Amino acid sequence: MRIVVLAGGIGGARFLRGLKQAAPDADVTVIGNTGDDIHLFGLKVCPDLDTVMYTLGGGINEEQGWGRTDESFTVKSELAAYGVGPEWFGLGDRDFATHIVRTQMLGAGYPLSAVTAALCERWQPGVRLIPMSDDRVETHVAVEVDGETKAIHFQEYWVKLRASVDAQAVVPVGADRAKPAPGVLEAIGEADVILFPPSNPVVSIGTILAVPGIREAIAEAGVPVVGLSPIVGDAPVRGMADKVLAAVGVESTAAAVAEHYGSGLLDGWLVDTVDAGSVAGVEAAGIRCRAVPLMMTDLETTATMAREALRLAEEVRA
Amino acid sequence: MRIVVLAGGIGGARFLRGLKQAAPDADVTVIGNTGDDIHLFGLKVCPDLDTVMYTLGGGINEEQGWGRTDESFTVKSELAAYGVGPEWFGLGDRDFATHIVRTQMLGAGYPLSAVTAALCERWQPGVRLIPMSDDRVETHVAVEVDGETKAIHFQEYWVKLRASVDAQAVVPVGADRAKPAPGVLEAIGEADVILFPPSNPVVSIGTILAVPGIREAIAEAGVPVVGLSPIVGDAPVRGMADKVLAAVGVESTAAAVAEHYGSGLLDGWLVDTVDAGSVAGVEAAGIRCRAVPLMMTDLETTATMAREALRLAEEVRA
Repeated sequence: MRIVVLAGGIGGARFLRGLKQAAPDADVTVIGNTGDDIHLFGLKVCPDLDTVMYTLGGGINEEQGWGRTDESFTVKSELAAYGVGPEWFGLGDRDFATHIVRTQMLGAGYPLSAVTAALCERWQPGVRLIPMSDDRVETHVAVEVDGETKAIHFQEYWVKLRASVDAQAVVPVGADRAKPAPGVLEAIGEADVILFPPSNPVVSIGTILAVPGIREAIAEAGVPVVGLSPIVGDAPVRGMADKVLAAVGVESTAAAVAEHYGSGLLDGWLVDTVDAGSVAGVEAAGIRCRAVPLMMTDLETTATMAREALRLAEEVRA
Repeated sequence: MRIVVLAGGIGGARFLRGLKQAAPDADVTVIGNTGDDIHLFGLKVCPDLDTVMYTLGGGINEEQGWGRTDESFTVKSELAAYGVGPEWFGLGDRDFATHIVRTQMLGAGYPLSAVTAALCERWQPGVRLIPMSDDRVETHVAVEVDGETKAIHFQEYWVKLRASVDAQAVVPVGADRAKPAPGVLEAIGEADVILFPPSNPVVSIGTILAVPGIREAIAEAGVPVVGLSPIVGDAPVRGMADKVLAAVGVESTAAAVAEHYGSGLLDGWLVDTVDAGSVAGVEAAGIRCRAVPLMMTDLETTATMAREALRLAEEVRA
């Protein structure tokens, strides 16, 4: 079975670990979000790709969900001693090495997809990880500061401001001119199932879908497309998805996110059991819906979620 | 008193520490060698500038003479885990931060001289440190491998091969087209004394003198130019200077190095007491010469060497 998964960071990565457990023989291609990539200290940092790679490769800091385990921060503190920031982005020494290798390869002319494949040779994530695009896309968030609207990098909004101010708009700058990376459309075209993990529907999966050609390829693939709600009981399971959902005019409910994706794209939708009351409404919108436990508390629970998603896909197919 | 010092790495840096002790009120400008700069992992590394900066700024690894004290090697071992080398160049985590800041600033368009000044704002070396040139100069060494002559980077010759094969030629690639960095010729023109510390006469001071305009400015400055022999008792005090001296046809003796610089450039020369027998020959070549202890065993001994150099300069002036 060939499965294509659109993934952001922590939520996507943890779901993928469950999926690998649920379907160990599946051929999984992950299309990773690069809209939250950022240049720091002259180095190219790809937080979502790295979170997937480290999580599946056994290098992740389990507790925080991102970054490397057993990490130290010597380089960062030395940079601070030079007065060079930002200090709000926590790059550790082990993590720095990844960004140094990536930046060196990009500088030598390799596209991001080739660089990602090279980094994965070390991590052996057990999936094929492809960035959504080799072209630069950078998610900006419009916020009001002292009465004036200004656009800031998504990471500044998310990590520095901790989404503490309202997002007025979320713009994946450059997405409209970006091309899907080599292999993205092919993987979608050859997929048996396409999954949207409980990743952020705006700044993770939404950004991937904003690359011209990807949404269309998924809609026209003719295979079940099943998603899992990142909203449980009217609040994001993790992170601050409600803030960016509001910016695109979508309520923070499992049903509203399903309708945001729309029945033209989504065939099936899993909501948490606490949101069982919304199943009928989602189905009325033309999307097959089931209520199952959606908290990724451990690997076995997550694998069960993945099995439910695959089961719903087979139901859709039948 | 305004003193200009041409400096390589360890020998130059240690001498400068003695000079600061000997002449605490002097206005010291250091013209640093950049011929052994190297790009590693996409980062610009300037070993000699950093050795001067770390030594005078209190950050040097005293025992090894280069690199940072209290150093760790997490980034390097992670790079090795990615299969990315070279492994023979020992960059530590603290040191990496310096190269990251430098590379980021160069990428942003700042010349190396401005970057060096910015890095020195942290280290406060107590001297003005200027790279010999903002233009790229890279010292290559011609060696014979399996019957064929090939040119390798100086660092590969020095650090990887430990000068274990004969150097057939030493070429400061790019020096002929390089311009002295802003401030270099001005400092020479305004100097009261110019000193050549016991640095490598070929790959350190020789490279600085190879930048068009610098040798001429020193020769025409009309102030005492005094050097200290890096060769004591027919062998380099430290390092493998004999290997590169042979490549330029110069014997490894204190007298031969003085004559290599020549009386057109050098007014005074200090040799070690064990080389007292060579004083007459050097003087016969038109260079005033004294034999004094030249082993930089501790700060006080080194300060005494600096005082002797300044005393010889006054003798020359008178």
